[in-house]
Amino acid sequence: LTSCGLCRIMRPDDANVVGNVHGGIILKMIEEAGCIVCTRHCNTQHGDRCVAALVRVEKTEFLSPVFIGEVAHVSAEITYTSEHSLEVQAKVMAENILTGAMKVANKAALWYVPCSLQNVEKIMEVPPIKYVSAEQEEEGRRRYEAQKKERLETTKARTEELVAPPSNPEQHTVGFSQSSLIHLVGPLDCTLHNYVHGGVTMKLMDEVAGIVAARHCRTNVVTVAVDAINFHRTIKKGSVLTVSGRLTFTSNRSMEIEVLVDVSSLVEPEMGQYRAVSAFFVFISLDKYNRVMSVPPLKIKGEEEQRRFDEGSGRYLQNKAKRVTDQEGQQ
Amino acid sequence: LTSCGLCRIMRPDDANVVGNVHGGIILKMIEEAGCIVCTRHCNTQHGDRCVAALVRVEKTEFLSPVFIGEVAHVSAEITYTSEHSLEVQAKVMAENILTGAMKVANKAALWYVPCSLQNVEKIMEVPPIKYVSAEQEEEGRRRYEAQKKERLETTKARTEELVAPPSNPEQHTVGFSQSSLIHLVGPLDCTLHNYVHGGVTMKLMDEVAGIVAARHCRTNVVTVAVDAINFHRTIKKGSVLTVSGRLTFTSNRSMEIEVLVDVSSLVEPEMGQYRAVSAFFVFISLDKYNRVMSVPPLKIKGEEEQRRFDEGSGRYLQNKAKRVTDQEGQQ
Amino acid sequence: LTSCGLCRIMRPDDANVVGNVHGGIILKMIEEAGCIVCTRHCNTQHGDRCVAALVRVEKTEFLSPVFIGEVAHVSAEITYTSEHSLEVQAKVMAENILTGAMKVANKAALWYVPCSLQNVEKIMEVPPIKYVSAEQEEEGRRRYEAQKKERLETTKARTEELVAPPSNPEQHTVGFSQSSLIHLVGPLDCTLHNYVHGGVTMKLMDEVAGIVAARHCRTNVVTVAVDAINFHRTIKKGSVLTVSGRLTFTSNRSMEIEVLVDVSSLVEPEMGQYRAVSAFFVFISLDKYNRVMSVPPLKIKGEEEQRRFDEGSGRYLQNKAKRVTDQEGQQ
Repeated sequence: LTSCGLCRIMRPDDANVVGNVHGGIILKMIEEAGCIVCTRHCNTQHGDRCVAALVRVEKTEFLSPVFIGEVAHVSAEITYTSEHSLEVQAKVMAENILTGAMKVANKAALWYVPCSLQNVEKIMEVPPIKYVSAEQEEEGRRRYEAQKKERLETTKARTEELVAPPSNPEQHTVGFSQSSLIHLVGPLDCTLHNYVHGGVTMKLMDEVAGIVAARHCRTNVVTVAVDAINFHRTIKKGSVLTVSGRLTFTSNRSMEIEVLVDVSSLVEPEMGQYRAVSAFFVFISLDKYNRVMSVPPLKIKGEEEQRRFDEGSGRYLQNKAKRVTDQEGQQ
Repeated sequence: LTSCGLCRIMRPDDANVVGNVHGGIILKMIEEAGCIVCTRHCNTQHGDRCVAALVRVEKTEFLSPVFIGEVAHVSAEITYTSEHSLEVQAKVMAENILTGAMKVANKAALWYVPCSLQNVEKIMEVPPIKYVSAEQEEEGRRRYEAQKKERLETTKARTEELVAPPSNPEQHTVGFSQSSLIHLVGPLDCTLHNYVHGGVTMKLMDEVAGIVAARHCRTNVVTVAVDAINFHRTIKKGSVLTVSGRLTFTSNRSMEIEVLVDVSSLVEPEMGQYRAVSAFFVFISLDKYNRVMSVPPLKIKGEEEQRRFDEGSGRYLQNKAKRVTDQEGQQ
Repeated sequence: LTSCGLCRIMRPDDANVVGNVHGGIILKMIEEAGCIVCTRHCNTQHGDRCVAALVRVEKTEFLSPVFIGEVAHVSAEITYTSEHSLEVQAKVMAENILTGAMKVANKAALWYVPCSLQNVEKIMEVPPIKYVSAEQEEEGRRRYEAQKKERLETTKARTEELVAPPSNPEQHTVGFSQSSLIHLVGPLDCTLHNYVHGGVTMKLMDEVAGIVAARHCRTNVVTVAVDAINFHRTIKKGSVLTVSGRLTFTSNRSMEIEVLVDVSSLVEPEMGQYRAVSAFFVFISLDKYNRVMSVPPLKIKGEEEQRRFDEGSGRYLQNKAKRVTDQEGQQ
């Protein structure tokens, strides 16, 4: 019972006008499966009842597009437990029930911590899982240490303010496609303890990133990858989320969009505003036959944009190198 | 691959104010699982691609209530195939992920037919399933013949018009609690071939029945049983559904509500209006500790209401007798 | 921080079968932005935490249609504050992100009052905003006095009962297209203090008006204007709304529909039933190229219908005269 499967038919409101299911919908389903499996596992012990809260999603790639009418199957399994956290590995298969075709849409790894329902600030202990082999446990520990290190490093980063774009920005500049939306957190967005599901936040982030990408290239755009996402702080019911996106980098065939989530409370202004999440989304542009098209190059204005472009370029080259290594590793 | 499981966390909008998940939500999930498993099975052959359309749900009982925050697991399996129809047996388990408790919430049997995507009037042939034993197949055939006979009998029945209640009806009369809603069929309600999912219709029917029951007894009410439902005709996108409910019978501790679904087209007036579905829902009334309360007796006005009351009373006694027989059979 | 912008992509379930976004969706978004900006502003002071409740929307016109796939941008700004109320001016732009085209879809003015979260009957004081000029403040005060006067006048009006139509009404009569729906208020419909969002009510009203209009002329219909709407009383979670619509007037190219919202409580019968809102919606009929079509004339039966028709005719001529004056004023 350390695994969980959920599936449903993809509906028109899960997809864009052309019928491609939004990456954010897939991320939201993965997170629901992860939350179920971790909450269930952590409540198999004595002590306070608790709910699992998402703290991190590892970098993930969208391997094949999913379409309206297909059935998305999400399976999630707990693959490592530390004293206070759980790793879940999830896989999404898309099934075309008319042709029987099955394809892997996504693989992701998520980290959760169990929060007490009595006192949401209290992190509970996690009952250990059993490993098939000592090697398997050791690999899990390595992943645990690596993500812990990275989380500590990025917590202080990416808190810079978002500057409003100039009023009549030139096409293909950062300011031209920069977008933001606000979302008032409602009861459906929340877990049992009235904190926002990580999946809800990721869906909103993907939505904004998609608008930025579509404004830049005026075509059908789809998510192909998401950078590791750290959830620095939990978000309460009654909050207002401001989700902002801006282009940081374009290659010939891809766009990188930085998405920032700022939180303020409608009713408790003394809480102030804080940065809850930030991440990079990568989108590509498709023609009407779903073939990858080239992307208009981003016009850079000023040093700040140049710096972010160079950093994006670095991530792009690193990922490209990693893909080559992975493929060679598989041969 | 003749079975399918789906699950999700029950959310606030799946439930009433007190936290009980609506019976209609459970019926809708069951129907989605049935549609997936039948559509998948019927497309494993050559010929037109097709989508499974619900034609009948056998009488079903809600065995335990489901609450917000619980995970509902629906499993559906094809248990019989005739030349042009499939029987699906479905089971719903409700899991409390905080305590680990699991309970059976519902068991249901549904009948589907495969409709061609090219020509929705064309019913396709169904690839036969394999049976574990000749006995199992024989039992399936018996269920098939029984439901076929019953469907033929009820197709012409229950087409009587619904009379508007008097303007100031007395409390606890049929007119006092009679209710109806209209629903414009949208894209989210539809299958790939733009016909309304049977589950959507059942959810609306349960919603109206619940309002009728609550108006009658002014308490927390929940669905405990649904009569066999026959879907006489399919319903297209762009239709307007008028779903009406009226009390037909009350026992000491239950209410029977007749629900009628009338369909007209906004854009094709030549279609006229027709009765697409009708069924009886049974509700009970609960106090704040979820204990069954007594129901105010229905005040009958006129011969028509008396006739319907007597018929309801007949169904009530028959079900009661059947439950006794079933329990004895299990001992 | 006296302004707020929100945007989102229009989805299939926001629109009718032909792809036109429902006027009710636009009204709901405007109201959400207004609620956020007012709630935020009123909580910048000491004292009870509070939530802004909508009390009035000024007459508004839908200037251009919005379609699925477009991004609707709503901006809302507080433009006047009295001791206990706030005026918000909102503007909706529709952006086609594929072509970059932007058009004004709607402009509206809304009035809110802040209700204490501790005691929802208590209206809080509103912190004053700063005005650019004394003139601006003076104009705001004029608008405030005008709406106050009008609200007082209409509070007692429009409480007449809705008579059920005859059982076989003739086409193009009032009875033929008269429609009503019931809606059980759920958690999603509510603000933080469990009162129904004004935007939810307006969306339901637009839905009923649209069904009435479509039944009358059997074509694609869209909202072009809404009369000033006064929210006489707040609506609680657990209420049942009966939303009824009937044609009052047709010109060559438009239909006026009166929509009434009656509220009763499922759980507190002693509350009785009351009329919470009423308004007039104006619809036009479009052909498949989105060109305005002529409307079948309304067949009037009886004195009451004639009186309402004449009143509707008066509003129609007044609005027409006002449009001419406005256009001349702009030259």
